Amino acid sequence: MNLERAQAPVAFLPDWLSLHAERRPGRVALRSDHRAITYAELYAAARSMAARAFALGVRPGDRVGVMCHQGLMHALCLHALMLLRAVLVPLNWRLQPSELAYQLEDCGASFVLCDESAAPLASQVAGMVSRSVQTVVLSERAWEAEASHAEPASIASVDVSLPSVHAIVYTSGTTGRPKGAMITYQNHWYSAMASALQFGLDPDEHWLVPMPLFHVGGMGVLMRSLIYGTTAVVHDRFDAERVDRALASGEITLVSLVPTMLARILKLRRGPYPPRLRAILLGGAGCPRPVLERALELGLPVAQSYGLTETNTQVATIDLADALRKMGSSGRPLANTRIAVQGPDGPTTEPGVEGEILVQGPTVFAGYYNRKEETERALAGGWLHTGDIGRFDEEGFLYVLDRRADLIVSGGENVYPAEIESQMLALPGVVDAGVVGKPDDEWGQVPVAFVVLEPGKVLTDEMARALREELRARLAHYKVPAEIRQVDALPRTASGKLMRYEMRKWVMQG
Amino acid sequence: MNLERAQAPVAFLPDWLSLHAERRPGRVALRSDHRAITYAELYAAARSMAARAFALGVRPGDRVGVMCHQGLMHALCLHALMLLRAVLVPLNWRLQPSELAYQLEDCGASFVLCDESAAPLASQVAGMVSRSVQTVVLSERAWEAEASHAEPASIASVDVSLPSVHAIVYTSGTTGRPKGAMITYQNHWYSAMASALQFGLDPDEHWLVPMPLFHVGGMGVLMRSLIYGTTAVVHDRFDAERVDRALASGEITLVSLVPTMLARILKLRRGPYPPRLRAILLGGAGCPRPVLERALELGLPVAQSYGLTETNTQVATIDLADALRKMGSSGRPLANTRIAVQGPDGPTTEPGVEGEILVQGPTVFAGYYNRKEETERALAGGWLHTGDIGRFDEEGFLYVLDRRADLIVSGGENVYPAEIESQMLALPGVVDAGVVGKPDDEWGQVPVAFVVLEPGKVLTDEMARALREELRARLAHYKVPAEIRQVDALPRTASGKLMRYEMRKWVMQG
Repeated sequence: MNLERAQAPVAFLPDWLSLHAERRPGRVALRSDHRAITYAELYAAARSMAARAFALGVRPGDRVGVMCHQGLMHALCLHALMLLRAVLVPLNWRLQPSELAYQLEDCGASFVLCDESAAPLASQVAGMVSRSVQTVVLSERAWEAEASHAEPASIASVDVSLPSVHAIVYTSGTTGRPKGAMITYQNHWYSAMASALQFGLDPDEHWLVPMPLFHVGGMGVLMRSLIYGTTAVVHDRFDAERVDRALASGEITLVSLVPTMLARILKLRRGPYPPRLRAILLGGAGCPRPVLERALELGLPVAQSYGLTETNTQVATIDLADALRKMGSSGRPLANTRIAVQGPDGPTTEPGVEGEILVQGPTVFAGYYNRKEETERALAGGWLHTGDIGRFDEEGFLYVLDRRADLIVSGGENVYPAEIESQMLALPGVVDAGVVGKPDDEWGQVPVAFVVLEPGKVLTDEMARALREELRARLAHYKVPAEIRQVDALPRTASGKLMRYEMRKWVMQG
Repeated sequence: MNLERAQAPVAFLPDWLSLHAERRPGRVALRSDHRAITYAELYAAARSMAARAFALGVRPGDRVGVMCHQGLMHALCLHALMLLRAVLVPLNWRLQPSELAYQLEDCGASFVLCDESAAPLASQVAGMVSRSVQTVVLSERAWEAEASHAEPASIASVDVSLPSVHAIVYTSGTTGRPKGAMITYQNHWYSAMASALQFGLDPDEHWLVPMPLFHVGGMGVLMRSLIYGTTAVVHDRFDAERVDRALASGEITLVSLVPTMLARILKLRRGPYPPRLRAILLGGAGCPRPVLERALELGLPVAQSYGLTETNTQVATIDLADALRKMGSSGRPLANTRIAVQGPDGPTTEPGVEGEILVQGPTVFAGYYNRKEETERALAGGWLHTGDIGRFDEEGFLYVLDRRADLIVSGGENVYPAEIESQMLALPGVVDAGVVGKPDDEWGQVPVAFVVLEPGKVLTDEMARALREELRARLAHYKVPAEIRQVDALPRTASGKLMRYEMRKWVMQG
């Protein structure tokens, strides 16, 4: 009798959406200002959309790009693709067409679902891909479930396969070459349970997400609400007053924000929110002390977190009181997650040891799509190698010393210097380029570039403007350096590696 | 690129106890009237006890009986065995020594851990087993973590292996031959998550369990509190006044009861409990209508449930309003669970179809220990065959028509007629015997026996007394028939199967 392996590990769960539609059909699944969709309605609309996509040729395992300005339409696409067991590739419409085309090329997508307002960009991007990519424009009628397409048998009551890929989310990483992070269903299940274990679970949860849904942060709110069978409240664009009103209304129980958003909301606030709001979850970047202090003054339940795309959002969290007591700490690991740093003798949580931050647990992603080598490197030895440097203190609190060595977080978006640098090196006259972040009151950080020009050239205001214009055509606007400064040489190690901390000193010196 | 199996299904989670001891050392893990144990203390004491058991010879995978009158000591044993990766066999000290000896014999246990007050029974039972069984008596000093025994390396920070057997819980089943139901760690994990998804999760949960801890119901409260990192409040004996006081104090957030207990508590109640009490979970048997009506009058958050040892507690639940509207229903499936009935064309949830109730999901047990055939029968076709008969209504509510065909639930304990019958058939003068339940104001049900005696014999009061005396020596007291009646013949089908519903009619006719 093998008591060690008496059962196979759980690999399937009954499909969440169909079960909720059966058990609590009238419960609101998704809400925005102009619309509230119940679980029964969502299931019907998602089945209808899945049948339509199937009729067009979308099959299980196909990668399908989704580009929607409207959060609710994005959510509908997400659910339809799940029913079809196709893989969601959420597209960040803030990126440049060439960046998006690269992602579609890389993941081999043949379809892009988009809403009407994103259709022009989606078509443009589709036209740039070497393969034929079909753009499917979804109108408001997508919400009216129609039996116009025959539904394949596989759609009704399909099981959730936990080890399967749910989404491929592109992340630039330190190399500057975007990679598709594969997020599985079990990543979502365990992330949802980790949140519940950390912040509790209200059976009538209303989770507000005024962030884009194409990052793991926004996607996580949709998936958690689905798994819980509760309500996701979606704001398509961040509007501080609107978020403040929603939080003050007493309906919202949880909200996901980036520090920049919280700072703006705090400018409007004079007192605490109703107690039904259990946590303000801050992701993406460290929060400035004055913001935390103001939040404490107002009695807001802020929880800061540390996480990456590769861990499907947060893996460590710290509440407000601890955050002020332990300024700069990212807190302690969430349930079921182990965090360590790479010490001289292997992974350790010994206080004071500095090293690369390692993460182990069921929310760690499945690897990069079609990048065997990078995946093996990232997951070597059974730990996720984050690229971030950190250490623990005596109470087991994690401090991230250098976030992904050189990551810039601007208004909640990750900006990888290497990506900007490689674009700058392609510009006429540029011999070498280095990018670092500069503190910014509004965005948290903005990128600043140092360039070495061809001998004899001088960086005039006009040339800087021209360079930035060139970059604007190739990169999302928040990646374009706020400043470009000329230097004689960049600080490099003997092996040629950029010493960004030296450049950061230059920035601080003004 | 295999997107269908991009990851192995999760098989390991970081050990819950050591993580909580690290993350929230001062939080109370276990509380009784005379003692409060923090997570740090519990971890230290469990390590110490594990080291002692290891020194005595207990090894990973060994089955170890636990017999404790004190709930906290039972819990400490449970945690120590988990750290050792030994298998818990919780022993119901209400059973007769011969019944308990059978269980130890069947599972091949060589050790029994017990507290001082259970020591005499434990020793007696150990002496009845053919193999040598060592009894280890634990005193109050077990709480003082001592480094008197060297700790094997395997104890510190061991992972939880989800597919491994955590416990073997004996259940008599319909055949009358007790079988060891293997409950895995993943059964516990998914049961804990199903509860959280159904009733929400308070990060400061205080779950009161005034029920014995040797059934899955009580064990479930210990395991859920562990998984959540919250507090289990243990009452060693059910005392209605004490439970009422605890619920009224505003500390308790959840409580697990059987209907008999609720009925007694309601006699003391004049108003609602504080709102911090989110749910009164009723398991084990249907609840009489007057009890439900009184609970509704008082505004108590009662939730009735349907479950078995083989599903590691509840798989369906119904709240009070629905319970009164749909009298006799067990409600709808919990999250991640599928329930169906065996229809003519296979499993179905079609309204009105009557058949054996089938359950599918991650809380379904791993099978019966060393009972390959019975396991295959129970889990045939990927569904648990419960032996209960049921049907669904139009709204998807489950009605259990015949609970395990003939199960008697007396004061929260399952009583299987077949077990009593087989003992009665061994008594002198008894030719045939049939047992059914009779409604009882105090216990919910009590067993009543019908006997066919040798020709010419008449059942006198004296003989009935003698028969009951004989049974008392072989069976737990609550299994001994409250009445024995003589009949000429028992109602049997052509194939010889007892038609218990006929006997139930006899009972109702008085």
